[in-house]
Amino acid sequence: MHASPRESPLYEQVADELQRLVERGALKSGDRLPSVRRLAKRERVSVSTVLQAYGLLESRGVVETRPQSGHYVRSRRLELLPEPRAPRASATATRVTVQALVAEVYRAARDPDIVPLGAATPSPLLLPTERINRALAQIARTSGGIGVGYDTPPGCLALRRQIARRALDWGCAITPDELITTVGAMEALHLSLRAVTQAGDTVVVESPTYYGLLQLIESLGLKAVEVPQHARTGLDLDVLETTLKQHRVKAVLAIPNFNNPIGSLMPDENKERLVAMLRKREIPLIEDDLYGDLYGGGADAPRPRPAQSFDRHGLVLLCSSFSKTVAPGYRVGWVAPGRFRERVELLKFAQTIATPTLPQLAVAELLDSGGYDQHLRQLRRRLATQVAQFREAIAQYFPSGTRVSRPQGGFVVWVELPPGTSALTLHARALERGISIAPGPIFSAKQRFANCVRINCGHPWSEVMDRSVKALGRLAAELPSG
Amino acid sequence: MHASPRESPLYEQVADELQRLVERGALKSGDRLPSVRRLAKRERVSVSTVLQAYGLLESRGVVETRPQSGHYVRSRRLELLPEPRAPRASATATRVTVQALVAEVYRAARDPDIVPLGAATPSPLLLPTERINRALAQIARTSGGIGVGYDTPPGCLALRRQIARRALDWGCAITPDELITTVGAMEALHLSLRAVTQAGDTVVVESPTYYGLLQLIESLGLKAVEVPQHARTGLDLDVLETTLKQHRVKAVLAIPNFNNPIGSLMPDENKERLVAMLRKREIPLIEDDLYGDLYGGGADAPRPRPAQSFDRHGLVLLCSSFSKTVAPGYRVGWVAPGRFRERVELLKFAQTIATPTLPQLAVAELLDSGGYDQHLRQLRRRLATQVAQFREAIAQYFPSGTRVSRPQGGFVVWVELPPGTSALTLHARALERGISIAPGPIFSAKQRFANCVRINCGHPWSEVMDRSVKALGRLAAELPSG
Repeated sequence: MHASPRESPLYEQVADELQRLVERGALKSGDRLPSVRRLAKRERVSVSTVLQAYGLLESRGVVETRPQSGHYVRSRRLELLPEPRAPRASATATRVTVQALVAEVYRAARDPDIVPLGAATPSPLLLPTERINRALAQIARTSGGIGVGYDTPPGCLALRRQIARRALDWGCAITPDELITTVGAMEALHLSLRAVTQAGDTVVVESPTYYGLLQLIESLGLKAVEVPQHARTGLDLDVLETTLKQHRVKAVLAIPNFNNPIGSLMPDENKERLVAMLRKREIPLIEDDLYGDLYGGGADAPRPRPAQSFDRHGLVLLCSSFSKTVAPGYRVGWVAPGRFRERVELLKFAQTIATPTLPQLAVAELLDSGGYDQHLRQLRRRLATQVAQFREAIAQYFPSGTRVSRPQGGFVVWVELPPGTSALTLHARALERGISIAPGPIFSAKQRFANCVRINCGHPWSEVMDRSVKALGRLAAELPSG
Repeated sequence: MHASPRESPLYEQVADELQRLVERGALKSGDRLPSVRRLAKRERVSVSTVLQAYGLLESRGVVETRPQSGHYVRSRRLELLPEPRAPRASATATRVTVQALVAEVYRAARDPDIVPLGAATPSPLLLPTERINRALAQIARTSGGIGVGYDTPPGCLALRRQIARRALDWGCAITPDELITTVGAMEALHLSLRAVTQAGDTVVVESPTYYGLLQLIESLGLKAVEVPQHARTGLDLDVLETTLKQHRVKAVLAIPNFNNPIGSLMPDENKERLVAMLRKREIPLIEDDLYGDLYGGGADAPRPRPAQSFDRHGLVLLCSSFSKTVAPGYRVGWVAPGRFRERVELLKFAQTIATPTLPQLAVAELLDSGGYDQHLRQLRRRLATQVAQFREAIAQYFPSGTRVSRPQGGFVVWVELPPGTSALTLHARALERGISIAPGPIFSAKQRFANCVRINCGHPWSEVMDRSVKALGRLAAELPSG
């Protein structure tokens, strides 16, 4: 059993093999796994490889460690919950009106007394809070006039160099000159959309999709056509192809890596097909890669490529930020706008003139020092564990007939309640009990997904979380359905 | 000679009286002023009052101190330069296309080897650079999760409290709840304009006006009607009245306090009339008060009121920031959007989600500690002195027939070259010699002001500045005119 460079690492192969046994039912919930030493001998691998494999399975929520006792297969209830279904395709473009609902989710997120399962934010406890604040303090003390001066577009060169260097690892040949820093990914998406559309134009979005994109589309007076996505592979490209024939589409907005809210990961061959399909019609792809760094899998799993890596014609505008991995409040994002660079840069001037100087320098320092990579390894493991914990609790507490997504990265889960259950009512009742969730209809311009909710798993599992998911499950069970 | 509470302070009255003597020619260039002691006796005021008066006249560029010798009336050349004329009214609305020219000015501002007389930025040497960076460092070290968390709209309460408190002093009854913090004033203006217009709408701008506003208008697909302004009193309200009858105007964008580029200060009665005129037609006023804190006059001169202070119907959207007074690179601004609060807040979410957290907290601390007021007194004095120094050098070096503005605040001057002189050619030739200026046409959607330039006086006077203004004067004299 030897890993060639193209295969996944040895411990992951061991883990995958064990997981297949669990999935086939050869190992059942509560079964004790072979001891580390025994398995190492049987598989002819080192003890540390087995330990790594068990760690990976634990982070996937497949096994649990009991102190002084060993490794056990976790509750199987989770595995029985199916994934949500892709919505039906819809032929009409819609003006978007989700603002009021979204405002409520944001308001709840500001309230420290509300359990934060609504907005998709990681706990500051998981972020390199001390580290980045210390870096900022250090730079502020020594930067002098540079710190207070305008850092006009394209923005901080030290940061752009770091991003370009990383992007190479994802297969994206982007030079620092081809990047523009922004006030978070939201500004990057906003500038990109403004660069390629005008009010009244039609754009394609995934269904469901991040409500912030719908707000953006609404605020610019654009129309959205929703193309269904699959819980595992993302955008349905056949439906997209038909849609492009039916509508004069000016841009496609997508989150191919760990879509928010559904956690899907578009396979590379789909990304390639998507880029080729849009190239044929010269339609720009605005790619939101906000969650790309938060991939699942073991420590050495590969970071998924953005669709941009398949683009040879500058038609993809790749957007991301450090808001989900380092510090939302620093507002440091970026865009690689391809052939629309000049237009995006001019719009950036007219929108915010410059991105704040010192936060960019602090993030650049974190990247340069290697601190970001170190932090990311830990963050990915912890988020995967939390997602598993939330999924398990949902399996335990929610009414039968519930479906839940198996996100392959990121830190939100998409829950499909039994048909007929009103997510809006659940949202309102949960809020009365001090729990915020994101109701399904805000993820659709047509306010579909009436029986779905998104749950943020960004906060460490705790008594409060357990109680809250339990309360949600009870509330959901009380609602009329069917 | 006693000052009632409503009058200007005693030393300012003394200074004004002396300045009138200079203006009438009773005191001529090079004349020695009475000794401090003698004038104090004659005017029956204290010695320190006379010293303050002479200090004020010096900052206005009227007198100069010669060591061991006394106070003298400065070169009269300056006083002979008339102010620029108001442009003729224009009846047509124009699509704006100044982007490329503006990009060149911004590019020059980024280059440390270019003498920065183009972009309107104060030298970091004049800003409380150490103080604010130290405040930020201190807050970053102690804020923990707050520093990295989203500060969603309306934004930092500590900062909004400080702004509301100050606004009261300007006659603006704004509560913290009525404020939204933004990424600089530019985002405030952008959100305001988006809140009250749609692509294709017509808005009124001052002529000349800040090119950033024209960029903004262009980027949103709006049309601009230019209404001339007077170098001293700002917008011509009679022309505005006619314009409002001729066009379906959706908003008026104005900089009533120390207009950029011309330095005009709209009198209170004009502000009141403007607000009433717009109220009659329910047209929103977007008021850019970026320079309001940088008023001229002595230490105790009053801060001018924004036009917003005359508004009783929530029709004025008041925008400002700390970019010209504290730290451009912190990107901390704000808007009081009146009745458009909800719309502006939603647009803010869709545009940048939140304003960076830590820079806001640092600015709030500076305001709360009194450090801002202390700094402002010094900054205002220094900027007034610099403006006087630049005006004097222009009077000395520029060809005859030149006019120059007498800004009543802020730190830019508007120079009208002899008719027929091409500001664009001057701009290009100056750049070849490493000097950046802002050519007149970028301050007009119609690219008028072909023979005007704006000169930034934000940097301390020095050998380099003297040499640069001299070089500009020589270049201007070499250009064909008439």
